[in-house]
Amino acid sequence: MDALGYYNGKWGPLDEMTVPMNDRGCYFGDGVYDAAICYKKTIYLADRHINRFFNSAKLLEIVLDFTKEELKSILEDLVTKVDHDQVLVYWQATRGTGRRGHPFPGGKSNLWVMIKKASVADLSRKVKLITVEDTRFLHCNIKTLNLIPSVIAAQRAQEAGAHEAVFHRGPIVTECAHSNVHIIKDGRFITHPADRYILPGIARSHLAQACGELGIPVEERDFTLEELFNADEVLVSSTSTLGLGVDCIDGRPVGGRAPELLKKIQDRVMGDFAEATGYGKS
Amino acid sequence: MDALGYYNGKWGPLDEMTVPMNDRGCYFGDGVYDAAICYKKTIYLADRHINRFFNSAKLLEIVLDFTKEELKSILEDLVTKVDHDQVLVYWQATRGTGRRGHPFPGGKSNLWVMIKKASVADLSRKVKLITVEDTRFLHCNIKTLNLIPSVIAAQRAQEAGAHEAVFHRGPIVTECAHSNVHIIKDGRFITHPADRYILPGIARSHLAQACGELGIPVEERDFTLEELFNADEVLVSSTSTLGLGVDCIDGRPVGGRAPELLKKIQDRVMGDFAEATGYGKS
Repeated sequence: MDALGYYNGKWGPLDEMTVPMNDRGCYFGDGVYDAAICYKKTIYLADRHINRFFNSAKLLEIVLDFTKEELKSILEDLVTKVDHDQVLVYWQATRGTGRRGHPFPGGKSNLWVMIKKASVADLSRKVKLITVEDTRFLHCNIKTLNLIPSVIAAQRAQEAGAHEAVFHRGPIVTECAHSNVHIIKDGRFITHPADRYILPGIARSHLAQACGELGIPVEERDFTLEELFNADEVLVSSTSTLGLGVDCIDGRPVGGRAPELLKKIQDRVMGDFAEATGYGKS
Repeated sequence: MDALGYYNGKWGPLDEMTVPMNDRGCYFGDGVYDAAICYKKTIYLADRHINRFFNSAKLLEIVLDFTKEELKSILEDLVTKVDHDQVLVYWQATRGTGRRGHPFPGGKSNLWVMIKKASVADLSRKVKLITVEDTRFLHCNIKTLNLIPSVIAAQRAQEAGAHEAVFHRGPIVTECAHSNVHIIKDGRFITHPADRYILPGIARSHLAQACGELGIPVEERDFTLEELFNADEVLVSSTSTLGLGVDCIDGRPVGGRAPELLKKIQDRVMGDFAEATGYGKS
């Protein structure tokens, strides 16, 4: 199968799958999700993604009627049904089904899964970004289905020929539309604290962990647009983009002043990925 | 039929209707909606609701492939298929269908309609509210499907035995989870300005218009929680609640100091509804 959709135990070709109109996702975006990259049936960092997913659900008081082990087993089974070596495994839980009304409907939550072809980004290239005012809500730590500002920002980035849009609240950089953003300055790796303004990215924590292992000091602190533009290196990270260098923001050249350090970090995170999944070994 | 669902020309019993998993509403809440109350097949203030809907779509750059007249005609046809005198007519447009990816997918938007039994609120009773910090995004002027904070606030209200939750940003009152909120003080009707912090409610503008006609001065300005608690009257309004008095917020008694003025406003808005729809005439 080229791409798969799953809903509460039923599955089939993604583009043919349907869901009830009264699913709470449809009226309120009332759900949470997570996604992982999968190479040759190994779901990379599956446990971390599943843990974050359960935490997102808990923060929104969405009751999941399966265990982490059961979810992992479902995902591991479903990836075997898709015909590509590299796929994105995406899953979401919505707060049940019922006629529209704001308060919780009670009853079971719904489990959705979507699997489609994807690739881990080649980190040897560099990408462009644009900046966008961060007008999102104050629950960005939860991976919810309320994503309109990210949709609009990603569209603006695409129109500008850029890879991503960097959000900022006034002078403070938060994250991107669907990635975290980090800077390297004077040999230090600097990233926004994991507060309600950003998603606690798994690639982000993996980068910080890699820096720790490489002896590169990590600072979790607010940084400004000015620091972004003056950084030695700028990088973005996401599930499929483990740490991609940036060479241009809003048309201005950035970074490029600590290429060895950037490459050392990138080699470490790609090495971890290859070790866990066998990527690049055959 | 008890309740109806419609999707891109197909319709049937609401609880049996399905939609494509790849509808943009399902992954991103990427859509806008509106809703009107309907009495004996007359959709109340249909044109105002349809105008607001088209404006919401425009603000989110969702391209609608039908005219206002065509939409009205679809809604007027669908309400004839439902077996109740009083119904809520709800419709939404999502940004098309496509495999998940943040930027716009191109192609047609999807039109959803949902019709179910509902009643215009009896304004002779009074209701309780609670207050909740407003953590929503800065696009509250657009009637979008990104409604998680409103869902949570409405659930908190229900748990507290209250009708609604009043949002406030710091000391400033904005609106409720699914209503606007207003105060009467010293003979004046005071309501939050129609900026990005609130939905420009149609019942809200109807109340302001009624006040104008009754010679009651209207102030569109920020007001504080303190003013809310010390108001002569507090009222909430929505599509199905044309102007409902409040007697208690967070367990503290409020309002009740300008009952004649409140009743005069309520009689006017209910009178307009009755005149337009024939409500209460048979």
